[in-house]
Amino acid sequence: MTIGGRGDEAARPLRLGMVGGGPGAFIGAVHRMAARLDGQFALVAGCFSADPARGRETGAALGLDPARVYPDFAAMARAEGRRPDGIQVVAIVTPNHLHAPVVRAFLGRGIDIICDKPLTATLAQARRLAASAGRAGVLVVLTHNYSAHPMVRHARAMVAAGALGAIRLVQAEYAQDWLAEPLEAGGHKQALWRTDPAQAGSGGALGDIGTHAFHLAGFVTGLAAEALAADLHRFVPGRRLDDNAHVMLRYAGGAKGMLWASQVATGCQNALRLRVYGTAGGLEWDQEAPDRLWFAPRAAPRQLITRAGPGAGPEAARASRLPAGHPEGYLEAFATLYAEAATAIRARRAGLPSDPASALPGIAEGVAGLAFVDACVRSSARGGAWVRLQP
Amino acid sequence: MTIGGRGDEAARPLRLGMVGGGPGAFIGAVHRMAARLDGQFALVAGCFSADPARGRETGAALGLDPARVYPDFAAMARAEGRRPDGIQVVAIVTPNHLHAPVVRAFLGRGIDIICDKPLTATLAQARRLAASAGRAGVLVVLTHNYSAHPMVRHARAMVAAGALGAIRLVQAEYAQDWLAEPLEAGGHKQALWRTDPAQAGSGGALGDIGTHAFHLAGFVTGLAAEALAADLHRFVPGRRLDDNAHVMLRYAGGAKGMLWASQVATGCQNALRLRVYGTAGGLEWDQEAPDRLWFAPRAAPRQLITRAGPGAGPEAARASRLPAGHPEGYLEAFATLYAEAATAIRARRAGLPSDPASALPGIAEGVAGLAFVDACVRSSARGGAWVRLQP
Amino acid sequence: MTIGGRGDEAARPLRLGMVGGGPGAFIGAVHRMAARLDGQFALVAGCFSADPARGRETGAALGLDPARVYPDFAAMARAEGRRPDGIQVVAIVTPNHLHAPVVRAFLGRGIDIICDKPLTATLAQARRLAASAGRAGVLVVLTHNYSAHPMVRHARAMVAAGALGAIRLVQAEYAQDWLAEPLEAGGHKQALWRTDPAQAGSGGALGDIGTHAFHLAGFVTGLAAEALAADLHRFVPGRRLDDNAHVMLRYAGGAKGMLWASQVATGCQNALRLRVYGTAGGLEWDQEAPDRLWFAPRAAPRQLITRAGPGAGPEAARASRLPAGHPEGYLEAFATLYAEAATAIRARRAGLPSDPASALPGIAEGVAGLAFVDACVRSSARGGAWVRLQP
Amino acid sequence: MTIGGRGDEAARPLRLGMVGGGPGAFIGAVHRMAARLDGQFALVAGCFSADPARGRETGAALGLDPARVYPDFAAMARAEGRRPDGIQVVAIVTPNHLHAPVVRAFLGRGIDIICDKPLTATLAQARRLAASAGRAGVLVVLTHNYSAHPMVRHARAMVAAGALGAIRLVQAEYAQDWLAEPLEAGGHKQALWRTDPAQAGSGGALGDIGTHAFHLAGFVTGLAAEALAADLHRFVPGRRLDDNAHVMLRYAGGAKGMLWASQVATGCQNALRLRVYGTAGGLEWDQEAPDRLWFAPRAAPRQLITRAGPGAGPEAARASRLPAGHPEGYLEAFATLYAEAATAIRARRAGLPSDPASALPGIAEGVAGLAFVDACVRSSARGGAWVRLQP
Repeated sequence: MTIGGRGDEAARPLRLGMVGGGPGAFIGAVHRMAARLDGQFALVAGCFSADPARGRETGAALGLDPARVYPDFAAMARAEGRRPDGIQVVAIVTPNHLHAPVVRAFLGRGIDIICDKPLTATLAQARRLAASAGRAGVLVVLTHNYSAHPMVRHARAMVAAGALGAIRLVQAEYAQDWLAEPLEAGGHKQALWRTDPAQAGSGGALGDIGTHAFHLAGFVTGLAAEALAADLHRFVPGRRLDDNAHVMLRYAGGAKGMLWASQVATGCQNALRLRVYGTAGGLEWDQEAPDRLWFAPRAAPRQLITRAGPGAGPEAARASRLPAGHPEGYLEAFATLYAEAATAIRARRAGLPSDPASALPGIAEGVAGLAFVDACVRSSARGGAWVRLQP
Repeated sequence: MTIGGRGDEAARPLRLGMVGGGPGAFIGAVHRMAARLDGQFALVAGCFSADPARGRETGAALGLDPARVYPDFAAMARAEGRRPDGIQVVAIVTPNHLHAPVVRAFLGRGIDIICDKPLTATLAQARRLAASAGRAGVLVVLTHNYSAHPMVRHARAMVAAGALGAIRLVQAEYAQDWLAEPLEAGGHKQALWRTDPAQAGSGGALGDIGTHAFHLAGFVTGLAAEALAADLHRFVPGRRLDDNAHVMLRYAGGAKGMLWASQVATGCQNALRLRVYGTAGGLEWDQEAPDRLWFAPRAAPRQLITRAGPGAGPEAARASRLPAGHPEGYLEAFATLYAEAATAIRARRAGLPSDPASALPGIAEGVAGLAFVDACVRSSARGGAWVRLQP
Repeated sequence: MTIGGRGDEAARPLRLGMVGGGPGAFIGAVHRMAARLDGQFALVAGCFSADPARGRETGAALGLDPARVYPDFAAMARAEGRRPDGIQVVAIVTPNHLHAPVVRAFLGRGIDIICDKPLTATLAQARRLAASAGRAGVLVVLTHNYSAHPMVRHARAMVAAGALGAIRLVQAEYAQDWLAEPLEAGGHKQALWRTDPAQAGSGGALGDIGTHAFHLAGFVTGLAAEALAADLHRFVPGRRLDDNAHVMLRYAGGAKGMLWASQVATGCQNALRLRVYGTAGGLEWDQEAPDRLWFAPRAAPRQLITRAGPGAGPEAARASRLPAGHPEGYLEAFATLYAEAATAIRARRAGLPSDPASALPGIAEGVAGLAFVDACVRSSARGGAWVRLQP
Repeated sequence: MTIGGRGDEAARPLRLGMVGGGPGAFIGAVHRMAARLDGQFALVAGCFSADPARGRETGAALGLDPARVYPDFAAMARAEGRRPDGIQVVAIVTPNHLHAPVVRAFLGRGIDIICDKPLTATLAQARRLAASAGRAGVLVVLTHNYSAHPMVRHARAMVAAGALGAIRLVQAEYAQDWLAEPLEAGGHKQALWRTDPAQAGSGGALGDIGTHAFHLAGFVTGLAAEALAADLHRFVPGRRLDDNAHVMLRYAGGAKGMLWASQVATGCQNALRLRVYGTAGGLEWDQEAPDRLWFAPRAAPRQLITRAGPGAGPEAARASRLPAGHPEGYLEAFATLYAEAATAIRARRAGLPSDPASALPGIAEGVAGLAFVDACVRSSARGGAWVRLQP
């Protein structure tokens, strides 16, 4: 009945701005809840909508000073960059195609960045951004939030410690059903931009959720994918981007994988699942029951390791707020990325070296995600042939 | 992929104070996270510890004005009651025996109250407090947080709508194992006060978690317990309060129940579970997978209703923040009580009538909980004989 | 991929007779399948129905010699007892009130007995039968089939080996819903006799399934119940025997228990579940997933031990036919009792001593089951007061 | 509490012979238990081992007439074919490479055949056998036993009735771990022949369990695979056949699939799982909990349909022996194939037309399975390129 490692509050919250996240948005509200949970951030400025009136409305509902609610992100970057009390970090929650220009606008002003995934709409953009970010020296955190679940952190630590032996198999899947119907045809805001190549990039389900599954597999196993064969498909008539992706993977070192991402799997809600099998053991994790991790050591009974329960290690504890059996979920993992970002930002601003043990996804993971999408699209265009991922 | 009903932010957060919740506390930090999640409260004052130095330390870590960090709760009530910017609501997170005096101190100053359960240490105290609170007219919210889970709200709505027919059976249990060893002998802070009759009252596991299970059963079914037989036991040598409670219940209207509360059930973490069976259907809910509710209609396949999924009704939606499949947990339910408290407090302060549909537990539920503890203790003292609950 | 220990065939099957099990019966067909699975028995005679025509019909469908299909069990006992190729063992699958007279008829002729539970309709009958059986020296096997599941055997071995430390808690339940409606009023054969005190005895759900749960709890823990308080109820209007039983138990040595048996728990099919918690660990087993056993060692992760998987011991292996992951179920456990009965019968007939490690339930377990029913009925008649079990 | 449709006994069992299934065999004992369960067969002859002494030993243990225990299958076919009381049906449970010659030996004598899968070791053999069997007119049943689970039958009926709408996705997997180590190097009998191309054919895990998963997918959906890309791999050093198969599939009509078969997935025991998603609903079935079927109708809560429970249709009932909640497993499904084979054999011998509703797998399914293995091997040999299945 002792509380976990997180949940620490801050005497002086970091000043946060947000780009995107106006009325009807999903992920903007999530970022705000995540930022609030541990009390490390105070939202003080924003550019919430391409429609200035709607943006002002959101700002007012959030209690912001109207002077710091901006009609466009470039203006926001300029103005906040000049204020002595300007934002220290910006959360970017726009459709994918805007990530690159928005990141670029804030990078130059020394403002740290928390950006939703995927990093950009194209691999080329991601690479250019990587170069710019390297020069600017700011922190870029990519919200692959599933990687912040305590039991995912524990899984990664177990693999790193050799508990699975040599990895042989990586089975990842992320199945949803909310796009089983042509919602975009009815004007559903979330569906519209996610199925529009101009806003989402070249991946549909692939970019939206396939990148999460791909990142998670690499995050836990530490393995890099070298080649893949992908069969992308649009099941819903009239859809312009894939709503289902079947992928076979070959990893450096000889492991093999399968990845399935779908938004038309009727009855699946948010079924992100990772299974990893090695010579010495296997691990299974399911996002819909995130506080549990199955570990099957070779020739011994399966163990169910739970967050804050016996056998959960320090990596899990550091990402945890509650005693065992008190469920933590999606928002808590998201909030952990924010809390860790706060720590990293404070360190950077204090001139301290970055934490080598940090598990925060950033630019490199963003580029890898786009390389995955790019390879899948190239493979599928060639009938599902095997292609190499561009490094 | 649309977000649930909660997660709304407030332009002007309510001013919150806290009594209890210093270093080493569990529930104080939980209340603070819950208060922050939806942005409806700003913590501005506190009396965190009986040890003034430790209290100041907590206040500083939370970024409070040192002038508003008080060495005792009476001083805090006086000072805050006089300030024009004084707290509007106080969260009480002390050991049980202090609930009554602290509530009383703030009641008289028109400050609304959010109090952890059980309401008081004894039934007599609870009744006197009920009378005082009635006169004072402030809002008292008792944090039976499990009642705020979306699927618990949905279960209650289903029962009320007759989906189960006439209720026959109410099987409630709450099993933990953290007190399977004599932690109190080693000075474990949480264990110490919970096993001390002077601080906890006459119930051990019974008061700490049995009251949650009892409240949940009544909350979902709408039934009042009339009589019970209880076999309380202290399994751990030297323990001064029950660490296991076996109870049989008879409800008004003829339903029968069993309730099991244990803190020595090795391998159980926070296993609060309610099962209700009626003439037309059955419901099963497990706190460790709170986004799921089993509904078994008579002569039809079982259904698994999920938060924000198909079949989850408006009561669930109002207590929900995320799309289906994105787990919400303990903190989210706790935060829902806080958010609903904020709405109710604003309404009271604006002179509006209270919401008749409110599901917030308060004084009446607190008195009922103590009546349950009292009856169990009386029964057990008589060898497990049947006794009536005092109304 | 090696096969388990059971599944052994016999060159010379034992000659089996059956009393009961005519058209419309449930348990008779189960006994016949159980007897066939391992090839240790050949059914050669029977008295299947009180209605001779129906009995002959069943005999013919089973391919029996018409001369060995009898109109009454006394005639069958006489005739088979005299034949040189007469039956060596009889399976008794009648309603409960006939168990005692039928057992008695065959006892005297040196024919071994496999009898469905409960042993008799009343405790007095059971005691008299125990005395007679002791004198006759035949084997009486009581088909508490759940005790033959491999993981139940393993659980029992773990408790005996001290893996749980001192037992504190025994939570048993057996919930069904098939009598939630007054089926007996419609002439449903299974419901009719089970709800008729003249045929079933004084227990309804209590005798039919409560005795299974009670036996299972004692079988796994090795503990004897000393006292109990029972709240029996008939929920269905017009019913003549309990359809729900709530029981609190006190075991010798200080363990406490709860037992719930219900046939009106809407949505529950055959939910027999046992949970045992001791100072060193906990065990949980669910009949509806019988190949799995949860073991929670104190301060270590929970383990899921599976039949024929790692960690399952020799007691499980001896009761198992298939490799891990190939589900065995109800019939396999039942067949294990038959196969073990065959071994024991052959040993007895060869004049060998009985196996001290045998886990076969018999007369003693039958008397204990009736003592449980008797105590529950006495307690309930006194308003749920605590009573002692008669030894 | 009424018993299911199966479990019927026969006055006159069919005379059964067996080829294979000597000491140390797995599947031979399974076939014998399956043949016994419903009492439709009497084993009267056999050729159990290539080693005559071991064969005689098995025959004696089974109580067979020594004159009908043969040293080679050709002699057995000749002798039994001539006896007036010769076998009516033969069960073939040898390693794969012997299926074709053994089938051929019995075909010609009008003896019906129950053959373990895969039908033969190569596609060419399977095609030739199909031609011979067509001419001979006997019944050939291929024991794809998983297709006989009641809930698999129900799933197939639901798809056929349109409950899923148009099928979009077919996700099949069959994961084991028993070959994660080089058991064949230690002389493990089951491992030896399964990893030997001369005995197993060209598929390892692919032929042993991949064919089950492939058959199950086609059985439930009614869809024919047209093309596939396969990445076969041998993870265990020195192994001569694949121990892991990753396959992507394209079905006629536009559905897409993934199939994973592995014998090196540490911690997986016999994890055969099928998930099918269509425009109107989804189905999920797991062999390790075979009495349950998940059905997710579009825009309604998921349902858990259980064997013999509400919502399970007549196809499930016909393959079922027990009331709901009484688990049936692997042997029961296997026995259902035997019982249905008995019915079909009796009909054929009586000159009746075959049942058009029969779900028994036979020659056509055997050829399809080999076509699958053949295509996977061709694809993998070309680096995982897409290839068409040969019809």
